[in-house]
Amino acid sequence: MRLICRAFLWTIILFASVQPAAADEGMWMPQQIPQLAQKLKTMGFQGDPKAFADLTGQPMGAVVSLGGCSASFVSPEGLIVTNHHCAVGALQYNSTPQKNLLVDGFLAKTRDEEISNGPGARVLVTQSVKDVTEAITGNIDPDVDDRQRHDTIDKRIKERTAACEAGGLRCQIASFFGGHKYFEIAQLEIQDIRTVYAPAEGIGNFGGETDNWRWPRHTGDWSFFRAYVGKDGKPAPYSKGNVPYRPSRWLKVQPAGLKSGDLVFVAGYPGRTQRHQTYSEVKETTEWSFPRTIKTYQEQIQILEELSKQGTDLEIKAASRLRGLNNTLTNRKGMLEGLVKGGILEKKKATEQELASWIAADPARSKQYGDVLTSLNALQAETEKTRDRDVVFAQLFSASPLLSAAQTAYLLSVEKAKSNDIDREAGYQERDWKRIRENQERLQRTLDARVDRVLLRYAMKFAAELPPDQRITGLDQQVGLRPGMTEAESGKAIQAYLDKLLATPKLADQAYRLSLLEKSTAEITALKDPLVDLVIALDPLYQENREARKRREGAYARLRPRYMQALLAKAGGLVAPDANSTLRVTFGQVKGVDSKDGLFWKPFTTLAGIEQKHTGEGEFDAPDRELEAIKALRAGEKTPYVSKEVEDVPVDFLSTVDTTGGNSGSPTLNGKGELVGLLFDGTFDTIASDFLYDTVRTRSIHVDVRYLLWTMAEVDGAGHLLSEMGVE
Amino acid sequence: MRLICRAFLWTIILFASVQPAAADEGMWMPQQIPQLAQKLKTMGFQGDPKAFADLTGQPMGAVVSLGGCSASFVSPEGLIVTNHHCAVGALQYNSTPQKNLLVDGFLAKTRDEEISNGPGARVLVTQSVKDVTEAITGNIDPDVDDRQRHDTIDKRIKERTAACEAGGLRCQIASFFGGHKYFEIAQLEIQDIRTVYAPAEGIGNFGGETDNWRWPRHTGDWSFFRAYVGKDGKPAPYSKGNVPYRPSRWLKVQPAGLKSGDLVFVAGYPGRTQRHQTYSEVKETTEWSFPRTIKTYQEQIQILEELSKQGTDLEIKAASRLRGLNNTLTNRKGMLEGLVKGGILEKKKATEQELASWIAADPARSKQYGDVLTSLNALQAETEKTRDRDVVFAQLFSASPLLSAAQTAYLLSVEKAKSNDIDREAGYQERDWKRIRENQERLQRTLDARVDRVLLRYAMKFAAELPPDQRITGLDQQVGLRPGMTEAESGKAIQAYLDKLLATPKLADQAYRLSLLEKSTAEITALKDPLVDLVIALDPLYQENREARKRREGAYARLRPRYMQALLAKAGGLVAPDANSTLRVTFGQVKGVDSKDGLFWKPFTTLAGIEQKHTGEGEFDAPDRELEAIKALRAGEKTPYVSKEVEDVPVDFLSTVDTTGGNSGSPTLNGKGELVGLLFDGTFDTIASDFLYDTVRTRSIHVDVRYLLWTMAEVDGAGHLLSEMGVE
Repeated sequence: MRLICRAFLWTIILFASVQPAAADEGMWMPQQIPQLAQKLKTMGFQGDPKAFADLTGQPMGAVVSLGGCSASFVSPEGLIVTNHHCAVGALQYNSTPQKNLLVDGFLAKTRDEEISNGPGARVLVTQSVKDVTEAITGNIDPDVDDRQRHDTIDKRIKERTAACEAGGLRCQIASFFGGHKYFEIAQLEIQDIRTVYAPAEGIGNFGGETDNWRWPRHTGDWSFFRAYVGKDGKPAPYSKGNVPYRPSRWLKVQPAGLKSGDLVFVAGYPGRTQRHQTYSEVKETTEWSFPRTIKTYQEQIQILEELSKQGTDLEIKAASRLRGLNNTLTNRKGMLEGLVKGGILEKKKATEQELASWIAADPARSKQYGDVLTSLNALQAETEKTRDRDVVFAQLFSASPLLSAAQTAYLLSVEKAKSNDIDREAGYQERDWKRIRENQERLQRTLDARVDRVLLRYAMKFAAELPPDQRITGLDQQVGLRPGMTEAESGKAIQAYLDKLLATPKLADQAYRLSLLEKSTAEITALKDPLVDLVIALDPLYQENREARKRREGAYARLRPRYMQALLAKAGGLVAPDANSTLRVTFGQVKGVDSKDGLFWKPFTTLAGIEQKHTGEGEFDAPDRELEAIKALRAGEKTPYVSKEVEDVPVDFLSTVDTTGGNSGSPTLNGKGELVGLLFDGTFDTIASDFLYDTVRTRSIHVDVRYLLWTMAEVDGAGHLLSEMGVE
Repeated sequence: MRLICRAFLWTIILFASVQPAAADEGMWMPQQIPQLAQKLKTMGFQGDPKAFADLTGQPMGAVVSLGGCSASFVSPEGLIVTNHHCAVGALQYNSTPQKNLLVDGFLAKTRDEEISNGPGARVLVTQSVKDVTEAITGNIDPDVDDRQRHDTIDKRIKERTAACEAGGLRCQIASFFGGHKYFEIAQLEIQDIRTVYAPAEGIGNFGGETDNWRWPRHTGDWSFFRAYVGKDGKPAPYSKGNVPYRPSRWLKVQPAGLKSGDLVFVAGYPGRTQRHQTYSEVKETTEWSFPRTIKTYQEQIQILEELSKQGTDLEIKAASRLRGLNNTLTNRKGMLEGLVKGGILEKKKATEQELASWIAADPARSKQYGDVLTSLNALQAETEKTRDRDVVFAQLFSASPLLSAAQTAYLLSVEKAKSNDIDREAGYQERDWKRIRENQERLQRTLDARVDRVLLRYAMKFAAELPPDQRITGLDQQVGLRPGMTEAESGKAIQAYLDKLLATPKLADQAYRLSLLEKSTAEITALKDPLVDLVIALDPLYQENREARKRREGAYARLRPRYMQALLAKAGGLVAPDANSTLRVTFGQVKGVDSKDGLFWKPFTTLAGIEQKHTGEGEFDAPDRELEAIKALRAGEKTPYVSKEVEDVPVDFLSTVDTTGGNSGSPTLNGKGELVGLLFDGTFDTIASDFLYDTVRTRSIHVDVRYLLWTMAEVDGAGHLLSEMGVE
C-alpha cells in the first residue's frame, strides 16, 4: 500500500517543478506526451504517443480516479480494478465482528451479490482538460492588496466551476506550476460503486506493515469494483435498480505480462509532490513538521493499538485509522531519512543560491524576480510564528470525527445562510452539500467515541502545553486550562472535560448527526450540544486563521507564479508540473536496483517468496488454498502465468516510473496500452523523491498481472471475472 | 566471524563424507588436489595442481594452524596474517580496563613493541602427512570386545605419536572417513607468538553480532602476529631474547585483488563437518541437541550481559565468553533453521533407506554391511538414555573454569602417578603437561569467580531438575539436592552451596592454581579445597562416563569404517573426507548469490557500505580516521586499491569455496597462489551445509586484500608492515 493519497483535496496547489527531465522523472500531463516522442522511441516505444494525449481514447479513457486512489475499467460492463488497500474502506464498511471481509476477502458470484461501497464512494472519469489561465489570473490590478487578489481568483474559480458543472459533470479548476497555469478539468462522477472481488488479507495485504514500502515484496494488492448508473445511463446514487455503467473504453488485459527492461506506462492521479519548494519551506518540513508528525503518529498508533485490545468491534473501528497512521508514519520516516541522508537541504540551499545569482546577474531579471525569494521567505516566516498553535488546532479536529462533524454542521449552517452560492466558502457550496451528507453517513461504520476520546485527550495535552502567546483561548476557557499548569493539573481538567464532552455524544447517532445538516446556525447553537459548544468556542480562532490563510494565498498568488517563471526560465526545456491529483502519465522500464552496497533488488518476485515468507500467522499468513495451489503448481499443474525469465509465477515487480501517493491502483500498461500490472507502492529508499527526484534509486512497485490472474483462476475461483475481462 | 573452531580437539573423528563432489563442494586433502586437475582446468586454473600437494612448497608451506584458527606467513621474517576474531584472546590477554586493545586496536611500530600472545599461543606448521591406517587398525582380532578394541587402537596411536614426536615435532594421528583411514601428521610447533597489528574494533569487528554470518558484510577481519623462535632457530617458549622465525615459505600479496568469476583457493584447517551422520544422529541433533543449546546459550548470554553491566573489568572478563556464546548461538540457530527448512531429516531418512536397500539387494553386501546401520542406531539409542544427565554434567565444567581447573589438577595427579606414559589417558601424557600449565597460566586474565558463580548456578538448576534415574549423585550430596524439590528449595540450597564454594576460591590465585599441577592426588585431596572436594564427589560419574565412552568408541571403531565403506562403495568416485581439523584445500569462484526471492547478494561490498552502515555507536562505529580516509578518497585522493569492477575499494567478497569453523584466518589465494584475501565467515543461510552441502546457495565470506592494504596504508599507518610484505 501505499500510494494512496490521503491528503487528497480539491485545493490550490502551491508548488511546482522545473527539474530538468532526467532518467525517468516526470508525472506528465497527458497532453505533454506527444512532445516526448523522441525519448519514448529510444526506449523502444513503437506506438503513437498521441494516443496518451486523447483523454477519451484508448487507453486513457479507461483510467479513472476514486478520489485518493486511481483505477481503470477492465470490461465493457463497468468492472474496475484497483488496489486492495484502496478497497479497505469499502470492505470495512461491509464488515461486522462476525464477518470480517478485510480478513477473509470477498467474491460476488453474481451481480446480485455485489455490495455497495457506501455513500461517498465515487468513480471519476476525466472528460476534458482546458487551459483557463487567462480567465483565472488575467487582468488583475497588480496593486490590489493580497486579500483582494485572493478573492478575485477565488470568485473566478467558483464562477467557472459553476458554469462548467451546469452541463452535469463534476469540474475542478486546478493550479499548475504554483498558479502559473490553471486548467479546467471536467469529470463524469459515478456515484454507485460496488465491491465485486477482493482477495483475503493474506494475499491482498501479505507482508502488512513489515513489508510496506519494502522490497522484495509479495503483496497481491488488487480488488475489483463495478460502477453502476441509473437505468438512463446517467450517474445516480446507489439504488438496487441501477445498472452497470458501460464505459466507452476499457483496458485489454495482457496475460503474458512483462520482462526485465520492458517499457511500462502508468496512468493515474498522483496526489502531490514538492520538488520546488523553497529552501525555507523544505527546512521547516525537515526540521519541524516531519519530526513532529513522526513523534505524534507513533504515539497515536500506540494509543490505538492499546485500545484495540479491548475488543473486536473496537479493533475493526480503529483498523482504518491505524492503517492510515502507519502508512503516513512510514512515509514520513522514509522522507525524513531521505531528506537528511540525501543532504537535500544543502542541495536546496545551493540551488536557491544559484537561482538568486542567476536573477542578480541580469538587470531585467532582477527587476522581474528580484523580490520574489525574500518575499516568499517572509511569508514562510510568518506562518512559522503560530505553527505550534495551528498544528494543535488542526489536530483537535483530526483526532475527533465527532468534533469535526459538529464543526461541519456549524460551518454549513453559516454558509447556507448566504443567499448567493458564489459567496459561500469553498467546500460549502451547493455542489458540496451532497458529498458532505454522504461523508457523514459513511462515517457511521467507523465512528466510536472511545477512539475520539483517547486521541482528543492526546491532542489536548499539547494544547495545555502551548506557550502563553499561542494559546487556543476557546479551548482554554472550555476545558479550564491555563499556561503554566502542571501536567497533573491539566490532565485532570482534560479528563473531567472529556467526561462531560463525550459521555453520551448525540453526534454518534446518525439520524441526529444528519439532522444538524438541515438546521440554521441559531437552531444548532440552541441545542447546547457540548461538541457544538466547543466548536463555537473554537470558531473565533478558526475564522482568524482562515482570514490569515486567504491573505497569504493572495500573496502566494502574487509571488509563486513569478518564482516558477524564474525557475522555468532558468531551467528551460520540457518540464512536468508537480503532481496535483490530476490525471498524469509516467513511463519507465522494468528494472531492479542496487539498494545498498552489496545488495541488488531483482526486478521480479515470485510465488517462491510467498513460500519463504509464510509463517502462518500475523502479516505473513497466506491462505491455505493459495499454498495448496502453489503446491499443485510445483507438482506440475499447468498454468499460462509462469514467466520464462523467473521460471515461476511472478508476484510483484519494480520499475523506474515516477509515482507518488494517489497513484495507488493505477493501471500499469505495456507499450500497447494493455494492462500488465497495478501500481501500488514505491520503495522506502526513494520516498524523498517527492522533494528531490533520485535519478538512480527511485523505483515504483507493481503487482504483476500474472499473479492477479493466477490467483483468480487457481486460488479464488473468480473464473467468471476472467471471462468478463476476456481472459480464459 | 566466525569460522573459528571452538570445538578444536586432538581427538578421533567419527564421521566422514562420501557425498559425490557437486558444485564446489570439497574440503580436499592436499594430496587429492592433483586428481582434480581436470575440474580445475575447466575453472580456468593454469598452474600445476601438484603444487597444492607439496606441503612444504609454495603456497602450502606458508599455511599454518593457530589451533582453532588458520593463518599464513606473509614475510620472510615470520609475519603472520589471520583474522581479527582469531586475535581476540591475545588482545584480551594484553588489555586492561585502562587500555582496551580489543576496542582501540594495536600497532607495534617496532619489533620491540610487539606483545606476547601469552602462554598457550601456538603456530603449527604441517611438515608431513603419512598414511598409517594399517599400523593403527591392521591385524586386530575381529572377535575382540569393544573395550579391548578401543584400547588397542588407543595404544597404537599413543605409541606412534610418541615415536613421531621423538624428532622434536608435534604429531597427531588423525582419523579420516570415520576410522576407515588414519594419517600421521607432523607439525612444527612454534610457541612464542606476538601480536604485531590489529585494527580497531570498529574495523575488525565492524557490524558485530548484527552482521555475524550475514551479507552484505563490511568487516575488516584481519590481524597480524609474528612467530618467534630461540636464537638457535628452534621453537622455544616466550623469551625476550627470541628472534623472528624465518619460514621457508611465505605468501606473496597480490594488491590487484580479484574480480567476479575468478578462481580462488582457500587453504586452512577446517574443524568438523557431519555430512554423513546417520539418520538417528541427525535426528538427535535436530530435535534435541541444537534446540537445547540454543535455549541454554540464549539464557547464559542474558546472564552474562546482565553481569557485564556491573563494571568494565567484568565486561572485559565476560567479553570473550560472550563472543563465543553468541557465535555458537548464531551458528546453531542457522544450522537448525537450515536443517528444518532444508528438510534434511527427511532427505537423510531417504538416503539411509536407499543405502539399506542397496545393501540388502546383494548377498555379499548384506553379509559385509547388513548389521551396520542397526548397530549404529543401537549405539545412538544407548547414548540418548543418559543424555539429560551427561549434558548437564559437562555444563558444570564449562560453566566454571575454576571447577575445570580443579578437575584438571586432580586428573593430572592421577595420571602422573602412572609409571608408564603410554598408560596415561590421552590429554594427560607428558606431551600435554606443558600445554596444561600454559592453559592454566593463560586463564588468569579472563578468570572471575563472579562469572563462574552465575553460570554454575544456572547449570545446577538443571541438575536439580534431572529425573530420579539420571541424577548426578555426587553433586546432589554436595549441594543437598533431591529429586522432587521445589524450585525455591533447590535454589536456596544451590545459593548456600555456591556461597561456600566460591566465597574465596583459592584457585583464582595463579600461583596456587599452578602449584596444584605439581601435587600428588593425596596432597590435592588433603587440601580440602571446596572446588577439589566437588571434583572428587563428581569423579565416580566422570569415571563411569569415560568407561562407557571407551567402550562405545571401540564399537564405533568396529562399525563406522564399514558404514563408510558401504557409503563410499555406493557413491564411487573421488570424495573429500569430512573436515577433522587437518590441513585442507578448497576451491571455487568469486560469485554472488540469489539469497531470497527477489534479492541478489552481489559478490563484493565496498567502502560505500561502511559509510551507509556507520551510526557512530555500538557495532557500527567506524573509527574517525577511517571515515576521514574515505572522505579523502571521495575527494580524489589516489590509491591503487580501487577496483574497476565496483569503482571503490572492495571490502569483503563472496565465493563458492567450501569451508567451516576452523577455516577462520585461512589465506584466500588466486590461481597463482598469491594472497588476495582472508576467509572469515560463511553465510547464515548455508550453515547447515556442515550436514548436507547446499550446492546452490553455499557461500563463504572473505575480507578483500585491497581493504586490508588500503586500511594499513591510509588509516592505520602500518606502512612498515606493507614494506615488509613487499607491497609499496
